[in-house]
Amino acid sequence: MVGAGQLARMTHAAAINLGVGFRVLGGAPDESAALVVPDAVVGDERALPDLRAFAADCDVVTFDHEHVPAEHLRALADSGAVLRPSPRALLHAQDKAVMRAALTELGVRCPVHAIVSSPSDVAAFADTHGGWPVVLKTARGGYDGKGVWTAWSAEQADEPFRAGVPVLAEQRVEFVRELSAVVARSPHGQAVAYPVVESVQRDGTCVEVVAPAPGLSSDQAVHAQRIALTVAASLDVVGVLAVELFEAADGDLLVNELAMRPHNTAHWTIEGAATSQFENHLRAVLDLPLGSPAARAPFTVMVNVLGGELPDVYPAYRHVMARDPWLRVHWYGKELRPGRKVGHVTVWGDDLDDLRARAWHAAAYLRGEIDE
Amino acid sequence: MVGAGQLARMTHAAAINLGVGFRVLGGAPDESAALVVPDAVVGDERALPDLRAFAADCDVVTFDHEHVPAEHLRALADSGAVLRPSPRALLHAQDKAVMRAALTELGVRCPVHAIVSSPSDVAAFADTHGGWPVVLKTARGGYDGKGVWTAWSAEQADEPFRAGVPVLAEQRVEFVRELSAVVARSPHGQAVAYPVVESVQRDGTCVEVVAPAPGLSSDQAVHAQRIALTVAASLDVVGVLAVELFEAADGDLLVNELAMRPHNTAHWTIEGAATSQFENHLRAVLDLPLGSPAARAPFTVMVNVLGGELPDVYPAYRHVMARDPWLRVHWYGKELRPGRKVGHVTVWGDDLDDLRARAWHAAAYLRGEIDE
Repeated sequence: MVGAGQLARMTHAAAINLGVGFRVLGGAPDESAALVVPDAVVGDERALPDLRAFAADCDVVTFDHEHVPAEHLRALADSGAVLRPSPRALLHAQDKAVMRAALTELGVRCPVHAIVSSPSDVAAFADTHGGWPVVLKTARGGYDGKGVWTAWSAEQADEPFRAGVPVLAEQRVEFVRELSAVVARSPHGQAVAYPVVESVQRDGTCVEVVAPAPGLSSDQAVHAQRIALTVAASLDVVGVLAVELFEAADGDLLVNELAMRPHNTAHWTIEGAATSQFENHLRAVLDLPLGSPAARAPFTVMVNVLGGELPDVYPAYRHVMARDPWLRVHWYGKELRPGRKVGHVTVWGDDLDDLRARAWHAAAYLRGEIDE
Repeated sequence: MVGAGQLARMTHAAAINLGVGFRVLGGAPDESAALVVPDAVVGDERALPDLRAFAADCDVVTFDHEHVPAEHLRALADSGAVLRPSPRALLHAQDKAVMRAALTELGVRCPVHAIVSSPSDVAAFADTHGGWPVVLKTARGGYDGKGVWTAWSAEQADEPFRAGVPVLAEQRVEFVRELSAVVARSPHGQAVAYPVVESVQRDGTCVEVVAPAPGLSSDQAVHAQRIALTVAASLDVVGVLAVELFEAADGDLLVNELAMRPHNTAHWTIEGAATSQFENHLRAVLDLPLGSPAARAPFTVMVNVLGGELPDVYPAYRHVMARDPWLRVHWYGKELRPGRKVGHVTVWGDDLDDLRARAWHAAAYLRGEIDE
């Protein structure tokens, strides 16, 4: 797996169970997965020689992020490396303009969008498509670590263009909530769809996932799963595909983002599903039969733990375990920095209010926001 | 963890989730845990310098077996290493004579037993305690890999004495089945008891575990858990303690063996309990609050996969996954040798007959005993 973050770390735990040999290419020996995987290779995921050397030791290469340059992926594939997902599929998770074009061609609903090349283009888009604000996204990468902006005027529409990559303008969707439909798909076309979840975002970061999405009608759930299965099959995705969706006030579903790797909105599957997304990602990329994605409890709630201001998090770590013996604490081994994802907690059961309260309490306690 | 077998391997998966730094000392780089743990130390678990060097890098040292010589454990503890369980506790899992004496003193029922030093002692024991056969056990280690014999005459009672260690004679218990009571206990005395399970043995090897033990009365279950909790507290066990029990025809429970480490009869807890035995072993030895041992399903069935005669097990591995998407396959990465434990499978649900049939089918298929 190229990348050594928490996704690779949790994939290693699944690989241990399956008996699969697992290696990572990371940027530093103290990255989350490099701490727990033997012989982690330290290298530059943007340097073709490093990628080639890593791939030479692997039967199958997969990814815990979308940051490997597309031209390097093609070069690796051309020289015989087995990349799953393929460079062609992965491009849709790397380039939002390519993704929007492909989804539109498939007839999958997305926010109204256009490629723009200047603030005046953005103003024209606003004029034609319902006014301000306009959501601006760099098609690839971002500027100064940022990839999404909300512009309320042409004056605010300047920054995205500084990245020097195509910019996508999108009409802001008045959604009632965000959903995520996660599927896994094999090279020979077997696919499984996890229950559709509700995801709660704050400041552009996923903070909470409730599985299944409360109150989602069966028709909507099937519709969301169909979208994800259609996208996976049409783009020939291999591995996990996460489709993040907006649920509009009228119940309509619009695709926001795609990711072709284990995804934050499916961490709940470690305890909450018969087979975790990490195991199914491995089974998919190795062309093994997929495991059941069925939920194991009426509700499973996952809340991310973000780095806070605690000088020493260990007492809090002990406290949340003592307070709730049913709480599952996942800790990524990362250095704590404010706002950084450093772990997550999961609980399951049938009383959703109780589950949410317990998960949020633990996450807030670990962040140092509360002390009782 | 001293030892790098499958117990250490599965403990590493739990350590990854908890964010706990985990290292192993193993005998070879291709041992089950050494394949998946970074910087596995290769050394001799019976050599004090190797143990000292390993312990010097650890905050806490624990074990995946009982083979470290007791005098080395004491030397390590004397020089400041934190050993959990302690050498004093562990001695009861290393020496059956010490174990029987301690249990007898605690008033815990065991098979009728005596220390014997010759075949004629065994004959005298048979005369006094119900006749032949007599079960003979070397108190420590064994002779030629064997530690338990059933002697039907004085002539058959010779072999155990060749090991040169004390030999225990025991009256054979006419049990209806074997049970296992597994608990975890912290240094400060918190303890949790897993549901009592039925374990099925063949040729001295655990082959199947059903959790909870079907038809076990609540009184018997509580009695078995009390025995395990009493033993854990009285011997000051830290970590997981497995108490293997005989259930006699009259419902009485007699202790057969003790183990102070994660145990085969609790592998089912990975999927079947709120907190796995591996995580609770880590939480216990690190003095973290323990997680709930509650079962997650009406029944969980685990069947061990033993090495068979298949020249290539991979097609069978694929087959069992394809046949049963709910089957959890655990593969230890060990070289396949006939009769060797190389993995296990787990299923859960409410139809015990169905669960047992599915788990046994998968294990038999993986062993090459059936091909349909």
